[in-house]
Amino acid sequence: MTTQEKNVQPNEFRRPEDIEKESFRIIRQGLTARKLKLPEEELPVTMRVIHTTADFEYAKTLYYSDGAVKKLRELLEKGTRVVTDTNMAKAGINAKKIEELGGEMLCFMSEPDVEQEAKERDITRAMVSMEKAAMLQGDTIFVVGNAPTALLRLRDLILEGYKPAFIVGVPVGFVNVVYAKEEILQEAEERKIPYIINIGRKGGSNVAAAIINAAMYSSSEQKE
Amino acid sequence: MTTQEKNVQPNEFRRPEDIEKESFRIIRQGLTARKLKLPEEELPVTMRVIHTTADFEYAKTLYYSDGAVKKLRELLEKGTRVVTDTNMAKAGINAKKIEELGGEMLCFMSEPDVEQEAKERDITRAMVSMEKAAMLQGDTIFVVGNAPTALLRLRDLILEGYKPAFIVGVPVGFVNVVYAKEEILQEAEERKIPYIINIGRKGGSNVAAAIINAAMYSSSEQKE
Repeated sequence: MTTQEKNVQPNEFRRPEDIEKESFRIIRQGLTARKLKLPEEELPVTMRVIHTTADFEYAKTLYYSDGAVKKLRELLEKGTRVVTDTNMAKAGINAKKIEELGGEMLCFMSEPDVEQEAKERDITRAMVSMEKAAMLQGDTIFVVGNAPTALLRLRDLILEGYKPAFIVGVPVGFVNVVYAKEEILQEAEERKIPYIINIGRKGGSNVAAAIINAAMYSSSEQKE
Repeated sequence: MTTQEKNVQPNEFRRPEDIEKESFRIIRQGLTARKLKLPEEELPVTMRVIHTTADFEYAKTLYYSDGAVKKLRELLEKGTRVVTDTNMAKAGINAKKIEELGGEMLCFMSEPDVEQEAKERDITRAMVSMEKAAMLQGDTIFVVGNAPTALLRLRDLILEGYKPAFIVGVPVGFVNVVYAKEEILQEAEERKIPYIINIGRKGGSNVAAAIINAAMYSSSEQKE
């Protein structure tokens, strides 16, 4: 059976590679139907986010710095460290692939000293986590899928002179979120820090993981 | 500072409990503005899903069996086992709370024998995982946030006589997904299996986790 066959019963797609291939065909069709023409370079990432959310709105709200996908792929291929703001985002990233590339994933959110310090300073654990990540030697890719306060703290760290290697800024929510993303977008643009940011309220740990995964995978799935 | 204060700067909401309270106030307002009147019992769950996705569409697409939230809460409070179809959904569920209630969370997706068997039978790992879960003694809450094939296999298991304690059916995607959810909805209704299912393409591991978390938390956050 091939994915090209017509009139197949829905549950005849049982092989993961067939399901994925057919999904991307439908997404591509959906983008065309909605007259959403995306830059070729961004397509694999945006399509994977749509694949993860079934939400075509991301085709309009994902913002990329110039050459962002190429840059992110290069960083990941060099084994650059990835710091996430949630264990859920970390769990969603293809750990096997990260390992193959010689990279590592970190999330400080559940560490007892982070919780302790957040409580003492009456700020979020996400903020303390970002500070901790910024103190590490060498390059760090920041992946924020949940906490806008993480992005706001990262912005402040940037204002104090810190330079992240890359920012994936896709927190979700109703408080601080739109503001935090606009703020970090502006700072990143100004200081030439590469980024992928989803403006507006939407995003999430799943979206964050999808962006990292898409950058790691070859784009062969989109070129049939 | 209270969340009732007007004209606060966005980044003045720094305490998690203030952020959450304000978020739920905005969501409640958003539901009212959209003239979406939900049953009181379902409100805490639907609101938490919207909180997780920033997507009000869920207020229209989440389907609950009669008394579903009460039933799910009771099961969780008894420490009923939770089986998820992804490690990401598992990572998103409040593990501390599950533990406090004497429950356990399982996900078979990354187990080597599951991968092996899926390869041999040329089916998805999610299908094998569901079979494995159905063989466990005692009650199981099934939480499917990703793989429609998991739901389809679960439906077949039900047809063969198995009875899940509860089904959270919120896979996301473009192939099999709508069909799988309609199928499981029909079987669950017919056989009086309690469920929360999101019809349509949308869903995800984050949505799945949000549903379980909402059922565990007190509903105090919505009653101000």
